This record gives sequence, C-alpha cells and structure tokens, in this order.
Amino acid sequence: MAGRPFLQIPGPSIVPERVVRAMSQSLIDHRGPTFAALLREVLHGLKALFRTAEGHILLFPGSGTGGWECCIVNTLSPGDQVLGCVNGYFSDLFCRTATSHGIDVQRLEVEYGTGVPADAIEERLQRDKDHRFKAVLIVQTETSTGVTSSLAAVRKAMDAAAHPALLLADVVSSLGCTDLRFDEWKLDVALTAAQKGLMLPPGMALLAVSEKALEANRSARCARSFWDWQAVLESNADGHFPYTPATALLFGLRESLKMLSEEGLENVFYRHARLADACRKGIEAMTLKLFARDPAEYSNTLTAVSMPEGFDSDLFINHTLTLVDLPLGKGLGKVKGKLFRIGHLGSINELELLGVLGGIEMALKSFGVKLPLGAGLAAAETYLLETADKRLPL
Amino acid sequence: MAGRPFLQIPGPSIVPERVVRAMSQSLIDHRGPTFAALLREVLHGLKALFRTAEGHILLFPGSGTGGWECCIVNTLSPGDQVLGCVNGYFSDLFCRTATSHGIDVQRLEVEYGTGVPADAIEERLQRDKDHRFKAVLIVQTETSTGVTSSLAAVRKAMDAAAHPALLLADVVSSLGCTDLRFDEWKLDVALTAAQKGLMLPPGMALLAVSEKALEANRSARCARSFWDWQAVLESNADGHFPYTPATALLFGLRESLKMLSEEGLENVFYRHARLADACRKGIEAMTLKLFARDPAEYSNTLTAVSMPEGFDSDLFINHTLTLVDLPLGKGLGKVKGKLFRIGHLGSINELELLGVLGGIEMALKSFGVKLPLGAGLAAAETYLLETADKRLPL
Amino acid sequence: MAGRPFLQIPGPSIVPERVVRAMSQSLIDHRGPTFAALLREVLHGLKALFRTAEGHILLFPGSGTGGWECCIVNTLSPGDQVLGCVNGYFSDLFCRTATSHGIDVQRLEVEYGTGVPADAIEERLQRDKDHRFKAVLIVQTETSTGVTSSLAAVRKAMDAAAHPALLLADVVSSLGCTDLRFDEWKLDVALTAAQKGLMLPPGMALLAVSEKALEANRSARCARSFWDWQAVLESNADGHFPYTPATALLFGLRESLKMLSEEGLENVFYRHARLADACRKGIEAMTLKLFARDPAEYSNTLTAVSMPEGFDSDLFINHTLTLVDLPLGKGLGKVKGKLFRIGHLGSINELELLGVLGGIEMALKSFGVKLPLGAGLAAAETYLLETADKRLPL
Amino acid sequence: MAGRPFLQIPGPSIVPERVVRAMSQSLIDHRGPTFAALLREVLHGLKALFRTAEGHILLFPGSGTGGWECCIVNTLSPGDQVLGCVNGYFSDLFCRTATSHGIDVQRLEVEYGTGVPADAIEERLQRDKDHRFKAVLIVQTETSTGVTSSLAAVRKAMDAAAHPALLLADVVSSLGCTDLRFDEWKLDVALTAAQKGLMLPPGMALLAVSEKALEANRSARCARSFWDWQAVLESNADGHFPYTPATALLFGLRESLKMLSEEGLENVFYRHARLADACRKGIEAMTLKLFARDPAEYSNTLTAVSMPEGFDSDLFINHTLTLVDLPLGKGLGKVKGKLFRIGHLGSINELELLGVLGGIEMALKSFGVKLPLGAGLAAAETYLLETADKRLPL
Repeated sequence: MAGRPFLQIPGPSIVPERVVRAMSQSLIDHRGPTFAALLREVLHGLKALFRTAEGHILLFPGSGTGGWECCIVNTLSPGDQVLGCVNGYFSDLFCRTATSHGIDVQRLEVEYGTGVPADAIEERLQRDKDHRFKAVLIVQTETSTGVTSSLAAVRKAMDAAAHPALLLADVVSSLGCTDLRFDEWKLDVALTAAQKGLMLPPGMALLAVSEKALEANRSARCARSFWDWQAVLESNADGHFPYTPATALLFGLRESLKMLSEEGLENVFYRHARLADACRKGIEAMTLKLFARDPAEYSNTLTAVSMPEGFDSDLFINHTLTLVDLPLGKGLGKVKGKLFRIGHLGSINELELLGVLGGIEMALKSFGVKLPLGAGLAAAETYLLETADKRLPL
Repeated sequence: MAGRPFLQIPGPSIVPERVVRAMSQSLIDHRGPTFAALLREVLHGLKALFRTAEGHILLFPGSGTGGWECCIVNTLSPGDQVLGCVNGYFSDLFCRTATSHGIDVQRLEVEYGTGVPADAIEERLQRDKDHRFKAVLIVQTETSTGVTSSLAAVRKAMDAAAHPALLLADVVSSLGCTDLRFDEWKLDVALTAAQKGLMLPPGMALLAVSEKALEANRSARCARSFWDWQAVLESNADGHFPYTPATALLFGLRESLKMLSEEGLENVFYRHARLADACRKGIEAMTLKLFARDPAEYSNTLTAVSMPEGFDSDLFINHTLTLVDLPLGKGLGKVKGKLFRIGHLGSINELELLGVLGGIEMALKSFGVKLPLGAGLAAAETYLLETADKRLPL
Repeated sequence: MAGRPFLQIPGPSIVPERVVRAMSQSLIDHRGPTFAALLREVLHGLKALFRTAEGHILLFPGSGTGGWECCIVNTLSPGDQVLGCVNGYFSDLFCRTATSHGIDVQRLEVEYGTGVPADAIEERLQRDKDHRFKAVLIVQTETSTGVTSSLAAVRKAMDAAAHPALLLADVVSSLGCTDLRFDEWKLDVALTAAQKGLMLPPGMALLAVSEKALEANRSARCARSFWDWQAVLESNADGHFPYTPATALLFGLRESLKMLSEEGLENVFYRHARLADACRKGIEAMTLKLFARDPAEYSNTLTAVSMPEGFDSDLFINHTLTLVDLPLGKGLGKVKGKLFRIGHLGSINELELLGVLGGIEMALKSFGVKLPLGAGLAAAETYLLETADKRLPL
Repeated sequence: MAGRPFLQIPGPSIVPERVVRAMSQSLIDHRGPTFAALLREVLHGLKALFRTAEGHILLFPGSGTGGWECCIVNTLSPGDQVLGCVNGYFSDLFCRTATSHGIDVQRLEVEYGTGVPADAIEERLQRDKDHRFKAVLIVQTETSTGVTSSLAAVRKAMDAAAHPALLLADVVSSLGCTDLRFDEWKLDVALTAAQKGLMLPPGMALLAVSEKALEANRSARCARSFWDWQAVLESNADGHFPYTPATALLFGLRESLKMLSEEGLENVFYRHARLADACRKGIEAMTLKLFARDPAEYSNTLTAVSMPEGFDSDLFINHTLTLVDLPLGKGLGKVKGKLFRIGHLGSINELELLGVLGGIEMALKSFGVKLPLGAGLAAAETYLLETADKRLPL
C-alpha cells in the first residue's frame, strides 16, 4: 500500500523512528559493563516516569498479561482473598489471572463504561473488619471502554478505611499517557507493558513495586520461577538479569524515555489529553456516542465509540480496514459488536489524527451510517485551533 | 515532534520504509559481480518505467539540475541554436543551463500557469526552414506551477513540421506519477531525478536517451568529462561505472522500481491522479483558486494554489510550519509570495492527504483567510468515496 | 569504537542485517488479517525447523528460562516426580525451575563436560517399575560446557525401558545449529529461545509440543495463566494470541526462518559444525584444552575452553574485552573462573571466526599465557582450506 | 551468505551503523529552517576536518570524479596551462579531466609506486618564469598505488619557487585518514568524496576552496552551471542549495563528522596508521612485496600488494571472492593484473583486519602461492600487541 500505514488500535501504536533506529543497534553482551550502564539508565528513567523515589522497577520479557501474573504470584498466596474491581474486559482478565493462581477474588462489579467508584471500594473495605483482603486489584485505564479510574481517589478511600491491603494497579494503557504518581498515591504494584505510552513494540512487562509489596513478596507462596522478583533484584544490583533480557527493547526503551523526558511529562500528558479531546469532539460531531459516560473519566489513550443502533461494529471495523486501511480496536467480551475503539496514544500528531477522523467519517458514510461528511473534522479542527498554542493550561 | 512528519513539498516526499530499509544494506563492491547484477536489474526496470525498448538509461550521482547539464553538454555544441519552452521557474532554469554552456536559446515564452502549446512549437519550427534549431527543450510537469504539458502533442507538432530537432524533455516531476512514453513519443532525452516519482532520497540524475541523441552525442562539442555518456555506456556494458556509483541509492532504486512494478504503472498513475483530484476538490471547496488554468493540464504530482488577495504565501507557509509542522512548497521566481504548492506524489495515501488538507484548512483559518472549516475535507472525502473502488476508470 | 562489534558469547549473537531490517517494519494490528498470515507463515516455518508434522508450536514473549517454566507448568502437577539430567549450569536451572513449581526432581548428576549418558537414563527408568517418573528433563546442548547430548540415544533408552515418561528437552542452544528431529525422536516438548540459532534479539520463548504433551496438559495442575497452552492454541486457530504478541520479533522470525530455509538446514548445520571444528583446531593449536571431553559431544554452537592452570578466566575475559573489544562467555556456577566460552552460532563467517581467534590469541599472549602467536590461526586456516568446498560431506 | 560481509576495496568501506541509522531518518524540507541548521552544522564540522578557518566548503551530489570536474571548471579557462603530477591511475584521470575541458596539462610523470617529488615540482615551477602555469594538480593519496605524497613539501616547493599557481589537491582517499592542513599548507582546492574517510555511501563531492581559488573562480571561463561555486555559496548563505541536496547523505555526514570529532582527529589518524602498519607487517610476513617503494609514503588508507611473479592479480581477486567472499581492489591501468589493493580505511577494527589477513592468506595458499599459513597473522598480531595501548605516540 502507498503511504505510511495507520494503526489506531489502542496499542501498540506506530513506533517512532527514533525508537526504531535505537532498536536496530548491534546487540551487546547482556552480562558486560555496557549493558550494566544501559540498565542503570533505563531504571533511572522509569522511576522518573512512575514518579517513584522509593519503588523498585522490575523488567521482564513478556506482555501486560505477563505483568498480571508477575504481580499476582509475587505478592499473594493461594487462598488469599482480594478485592477485584471489574469495569471492563481487561480488569476482568486481571482478576481471572489471580483466580488461576488460586486467589479468592471478591469482585466489585462496575458497569462497563464507568470508572471504579472509590466510595464503593471504601465501603467494601470498611466491611472487611478482619482485613481478609490482602489486595485491591484495579485497572487505571480500561482499554476496553476508554475509561480512566482515579487511583488517587482509590488511595484516599483505602486510607479512609484504614485498610492495609496492597494496591495493585494495572497502568498498562495509562503510563506515559496520563498522570501517575506511584509514591504519592502509595501504589504497591503498578504494572505496564512496552507497547503503549512507552511507544515500543510489544514484548516487555514493566512493574514498579513498593517496599510494602517487596515485604509481601517474601511471604507470598504462589509458585514462581521466571517471574520471581528477588532473583531480578539481586541480578540487577550487579548490572544484569537472571534471564537473557530483551536487549533490543531496552535500547528502544532508553530512547523512548529520553523522548518523554525531552518533551516533559506534563507536556506529554497534555498532548495526549488535547488530541483525545479533539478526537471526541470529532466523533460527537459525527453524531456518534461515546461509550464512556463521565467526561471526567475519559481516557487520554483511547476513545471507545458506541456503534449506532442497527450496525455491527465488527463489520464496520472490517469495512474501515478494507476502505482506507485503518485498523481500529474491536469491542471485546460483552461489548463485542457494539463499539469500536480509536487509539490516540504514543507518538501521534494533529495531522495524523485528522487523517484518522477523516477515514472514520468516510467509512461510516459508506457503511450506511447517516452523517454529514466533514462535520467531525470541522469540530476537531476547531478545537485544535482553539488550543493551538500547545502550552499547558495554567 | 510527536508522530510522523509530513513533507508536502513537491519532492522529495517521505521515502517509503521498504526503500529506507533497502538502502540500509551493507555496501558492496561497485566493480564486482553482485553489483553488475544490481545494475542490470535497475536498468531493466527503468526501461520499463520510461517505456522504452530502444533507449539507453544513464545514471549519475547528481540532481535534476545535474540532469539538465548532462543533457545539454552531451547533445549540443557551443553556438547551437535551440527552442526553449519556458512556462515556469524550472523550464527557465533548464534553458539557462543551456545558455551557460554557450547554447543560443530561442525562448518560447508561455504564461505561467499554462502548459506549452504544441501549436506554438509547430509554428516556430515551421518558420525554421534551415533547421537551425538543434533541439526543443521542454518540461513535462512544471514543478513551479503544477502544470503538465502534453509531450505527445509536442511530438505531433514536431512531426507536422517535419523538423529534425532533438526533443529534450525534463520529466523530473512527472516520471512515475504521470504517463510517459519514451519510444512512442520519440523523445530523445528524458531526464529525471531520484526524489520524485521514484520515491528515493535526492542524489541521482537519471536519463533515458534515444539512438538519435547518441548520434548527436558523437559530434557534440560541449566540454564534458563527468557527465560524458560514452564512458558510462562503455562501463555499464561491463557491469560497472566510470565513477563510484551511489550504491545505496541503487539499492533503493531497485526496491522502488519493484514497488512500482508490483502496483502496476497504470494503477500508480491513477492513484496519483485520484489523490491529486481529491486535493484540488478540497482546495476549491476552501474557496481558494488553483494556479493552473486548464484542468486538462493539472499535474498529478503537485497542486499550486494561488494565495488569496492580501496574503503573502511565504508568510503563510511559515505559519503552517509553525502551526502544524507541515512543510509546503513556496512560490518561486516571479510568483514568489503569490502561491503555495502541495506535493502529493510518491508514497502517499488517502488518510495522509486528508491530514494535509486539514492542516492547510487550520493554517488558513488561523492566518486570517475566511473559509468554512471542514468544507475542504468534506469535498475531498466525497470525491474519494465516489472513486473508492480504486480501480482504473474504464 | 571503530569497526563492527564482535559478540562471541554463546547467544545472543550479532543479528543479521536482513533480520534487523525485517524487524524495523511498521507494526501491524495483532488481531488483523495481515497478522494472521504472518502467524501462519511463522508456525509453518518453525514446524519445518523442528522437523515436526504432528507437533504444535507455541510462542510467548519471554526467554529460555520462561520456556522452562512454560514447559513445566503445562505438563506437570505439584508433587509429580521427574528424572532431571544435570550436566551443567543450565540443566541444573531447568531442574530448579521444576522444583520451584513443586515438582519432585530426581537428579541424574553427570560430570560437567560430558553429555548425558543414555544408558544411565535407561537404567533409572528400568528401575522405575511403577512409572512414577512423569517426565525426563534434558538439555540438548549445555551452553555452560559446550556439550551436546544425543536426544536420539535418550529416546532409544526410553523406548528400551518401555517407559511412558514425557521427554522434555531444552533445545535453546541447539535448534538451528544442530540436527533436531522432533517427530523422529518422539520429543514431547522441545523449548528454545529467539537469540540462538534463530538469530534474533532475545525476547521470545518457542516450544514444540507433542500430542502426548497436550494430553498431559489437560490434567496438569500447576497453576498457570500467562503460559497456558490451551489459550494460545485456541487463539492461534483464529490467527491471533491471548496476549499482545511481540510483533517485531515475529517479523524478524519470519525473515530468519526464510534465511535458514534458503540456505537449507543441512547446510546450516554443516556450516556450524565446520566453523566449530575450525575454532577447536585453533584453540588446541594455541595449546589450550577444550572443556568438553568427548569429540562426539562437541557442540556446534559454542566451545568451552579450560583456562590454563594459574589463570582466572573471569579476569581473562575482562582483559580480552579491554584489549580487543571481544566479549566472551564466562564460566558459570561451579566452573566460574575456570573456563571461557566462545560462541560461534548463528550468522557468522570464516573471516569473522579468524578475527575472533586472532583476538583470543592476542589476549592470551598479553595476559601472560605462553603460546606461539599465529599457531591457532594457522590451524584454523588449514582446516578451513581442507574443507573449503563448503559442500556437505557425502 | 552467513555473517557480516567484508569490503576491503579502498573505498567505499562498510558504513558504520551509526551512520546508516542517521541516514534512515525521514527526509526534511531542503528549504526549511531545520535544513539550514543541518547545513550549518555540517559545514562547521567539515572546516574542522579540513583544518581550515578561512576556506569555504562546497558540497555537490556527485563523486570524486565530479569533484575533479568541479575543481577544474571553477578555477580555470580553456587554454590555461597547468602542471599535472601523475603517479598513478587516478592522478592521470584528474589530469585528463582538465584536458577534457580544454586545459593544457603539462605532465610531471612519476614512477607508479612513488610519491610526487617536491623538488621536481620546484624545478618545473622555477623554469616557468612567465608563470604560465595557472595551477598544480596533485593527488595526496594515490588510490591505485597506496602512496601518499607530501602536500606540505609541495607547498614548500611552490613557495621556494615563488610561483603563484593554484594548488589543486585531490584528497579523496586521504581526508579523514591522514593529516591534512588546508590553511597551513595553503591549499587552494582540496576535493574529496563521501565514501572514504567520511565513512558514507558514495554520492557526494566535497571541496574546500581558498579565497585565492574564489578569486580565480571569478575570471575562470570554463563553461559551468551545475558545478558553479557562486550559486552554491549564495544559496548556502541562506541555508539552502541551488539544487536539491542529497539530504540523507547530509544526515549521515553530520553523524560521521560527530564520530570523527568524538574520537579526535589525531586518534583517527593514528588508528589508521596503526592498522595500515599491521596490515603491511602481515603482508610482508606472507613473503609478498608492497607496491609502494618508500615507507615514508605508505598510505594510511590502503595497501597495494605486488602479485608474485607468475600469478595474475585479477584472477587472484576473483579467487578470493569465491573462496572467502572478500572483495579486494584490482590493479588499475598499467598495473592491471600486477597488484591487488587492500582497503583499511574508515570504520574498521583490529579483529576485522585479522580476518582480512586470514582470508588473504587462505586465498593465496589455495591459489598456489607458497607461503607459511599463519605467518602473516602472527606478524600483524605481534605488531598490534606492541602498539596495543592505542594511545598516540608522544
């Protein structure tokens, strides 16, 4: 196909060429001094990204789903009870991962399209007088619905309940796109993957873990070998890993951290928020409905769009791919066929977003959805112009 | 900057990643057998692209301007008279190149924005009873105005006048974008450069030359060494060059020829024509005026847009660059400040074009030009949908 | 540093530029049709490489150590007894991985530097009248010692004992370097990683599993989620994965499989064997001793060299790195300080090997080891010339 | 072929991966502000490399042969007399280029294999009482023979003769490999190409020109357009070029200049000299003879080796390519079949050089030349160890 491909699934996104180039360097000895320096640089940069001074960073070849398993088997024991917040497909899978390892997951079911209400968590924790809940499991940005829950509010709720449970957060689709404050919010585990805000190809699970989580790790009895934190921390102290690390991804990670740092985290978040808003203005001007209910919970990373009555979103996504080579995210699990998702994360700019909105307009029109061509683009353009100074709002 | 850069000058355009990758191969011995095979493949592919069975292909590290010099010094002698068709900045420079080498250029001045009228050429040649004109110099697509002249008509005019002059054509901005038939139109030299329809980085001049041009070459007395055809043809016969060739560009050229061949030349031309039309529909819906007068002469490669009264196009281009990082082509020579040019050549797709049009809309609006946001995009989208089956028109 | 870096650890090795280029392609939707085609192609190629018609291929972002865990948790249950063959650092770790998951590992301890004797396995299995051993764990090529055990002989031994245990083989350092016949040798699991004979950057675990292993999988009760085979097989049937796959590595894998197939597996193995032999001729001519005892067990992948009496191999390796930027593999575990290891796997040619041997000679000499400079190289050159027709021996 | 290719012709050499990566960046507008900054940086770096404060740098898409033409047509007029120093194939071609443009070249013929004797130049200039010689043409490093002439001595000779001729030097194979002092030696033109010490793919001619040369340029009457200096200098002052520049090569040039600067020019020259010496020690230990006569004139860039009596070097080069995929340089012109040339320029390290020498030993042996295998390598290793501290000699 002519031109550059678009990839508007909610991660991975198109890897920036600086990162692609960084990853193409000749491999180095993963037990040598050059590698040790690379590791130090990467861990340092990740601590800044997670906003943690006291946390530890753990890296594994893997994926976000591997990050779930890594989080669970290192902090819990079979039979432990946890509170699992479920407001979408991925939070459901996070909880199922725990179940697979023998954890007793008490589910806090939340309607898809809304964030996890902190007061509901507080209420459940207040009721847990014996502190049987060893952990709260939550996803910051539900990639299946485009909803971001407030981890700050969750922390406040846990403090209000004076509950000692670990706070285990999936920040896969939020880290690098949305504000995250590991230390301030007293997270115990924040787990993510390479292919979202870090702008890398998939293939790595990354975790920040607190001292309290490390404490829990010492007594956690879930069987583990590959994912074991202690082995990694010990090896890392000597500049290497207990497994052969994904060196090329680490080269890329160094570069992407450098890019985020050069731009400035606040600017990165604002850029994401601004493009996300422009996308939503466009979608609404196309007379479509957002799947997320509460504007305060709209995600910086992706926008889930409800398919108009009478149309199947899976068929629409195939149509869009055929018409303009634009891959979009499908509705997953119980919203299959009901929504499509637009990724606007990582390295993307205004003109690319306009191209994406244009492609969606064209695809909707030719799919039979009634809409005024150009209206979505006009709305997005108008918003982008209004906010065109690109500076942070004061 | 986040996202992928746009580069909408009328060449070079963004090099497709297949070509970038091909160019990154390890260099090879430019006098060895692997190189000879590469050269054969490239020459073969270029002959197909120029649509010549009998012509010879000549490659030089250089540029389009180098191609002009190469064409002139190989076919003419100081004092020779030629008919130089001038309908824009680049055709003017082509003629000036001839003048620099002592050629007596009789200029056929044509209003900028229009193609070279074949009947005017015929008239001039008819008057030249003694056949003092050794050559006709013409540019197929004037990159400064976005106008494509009909070489087929020029050939017909020359035949009608039964004039033996060489037909020396600059096809820099047209080859690979627009139909060109070297043999059928009896061109004597067709010269181009790497960074247009061939989708390569700049750095190479490419010429197709006829037997008649080679005949002229034998008696041409312009001083030459680097550009000398005979040395290249002799070396090429042995699989190498008399100079160190730009091997990396040849790797890239092999890949871009493969891409053009895979897509099919007719499809390549139609894709260019379709996107060019969509661009113009969009521009006109923004209430702007095209600089080219005659729709039959609209270029597949670029669109020159007249700046609305009261606005300076140079300032507008700077504004567009600042606002949305979108480089456009300036007005050159006597249209400086009066127009901007949009390149839509090489490897570009619909969504990218929509992004470009969106960027231009936003830039115009914020520059103070009155226009309805979204109208240009709607017009382009409508046209693209109408022609969305992407097949060749019957 | 000037020039191209050398990386003679026993994997990863320098990634061939074809693979580097393939990996730099733009990412694609891992749930789309293009990905499904990529997956099919890769699975097909891997089956040919493993020489299996009936086995299933399973891919995970991970490492060889992840492959161990994946193998164990999918086939066994806590409390199961297995026979673990230990003849080096990595076979020891393979067994420890099983232990971590509650498996009762009965160790068959073999002297480091020798292969696993099939008759000892047969004897242990014969004694196990009740068939308490659910599996035999073995490493084909022990990366810590440069010894290759005969899996064919092990299979024969198991058949002789008529024992139903699963045969679980680590082929990390052998696949793509040494003959492997999954079906013929009735392996149940053969696990490997990306960064050895597959010539990729690290980051992927790959397994071939038999129908019998899948059968065992259904009743295996080790906790698992990420590594679960069933989820992968089901998703793969639809052309995707239950996790976000490492798409860039899959692009690279497609290319490396293509390279292996173009060269022909027999040629690939012979090339490895020939360079390995040349390396060993050179090392012996330097008056050093190989760590592996039996020439029949010499590895195609790496050569472990005993450090001469009175010298510490860790210090020597640092010296070599400082002197000529040549990273070598250290002695691991109980041979720490006693040997160094030379990787000669993947994409390496004769001149590179000579450079490596030259660097080792220079480093030894300047480290104080008495040896005649040039002797090692002469021996390697002589052998390479004797075998220079590069064809397979008849 | 497995492994990384070797390319030991005397340029181009293997491009360092840093440069390859730099060249793969997305193209930018060659008339925009980012380009202007790139140009400034590159011109600044080149001035440091040429060691000129007062000279001007001129860049053209082209080759070394283009650099010759550019030098001639900008400084001379048809009929001008020059003194052309000819001590090899390329100095001969340099002079022939001048002849092609109507220059009257008085040749100072020097035996191939020796440098240009400064006293002979002085003698010729002393005799030229009327100062009819407008210029002296000389090649610093004759790529056909591996001989470096002393430009410092030539300048001294010209000063001794108090002759006002321009000093026009081809530094194609020496710049970046060997000391060059444009200002100190009062060179008027020093011309080079991308693919030698600058470690780039071929495709660019680079010139440093003095004020005196610019003065000559104003009255020089050779016809020129593409190569015209004035147009370039005027455009460069505004941050662009009068032709479409080879932007990708400029990206690469910025990186290679950065690499040279990071290493330090003195270190770069010493590294070249040391590897060149090691190569020659190796060759002589193979009982072969160097073509260059005087050790003081041995080139840092390449070594020309006389083929032993009774053997044809062209056949030997083919044999080496077939046997070990090692391309070497052929004997050119009147030494065709009589010598082969080993390039050891640009980005190359000790282990690569040992590999090259090993390949040559093997090829010689199997070609029938009597030599003790390993002797050449031992000599090179010995020398490299003796000089292994890699620091500059005090």
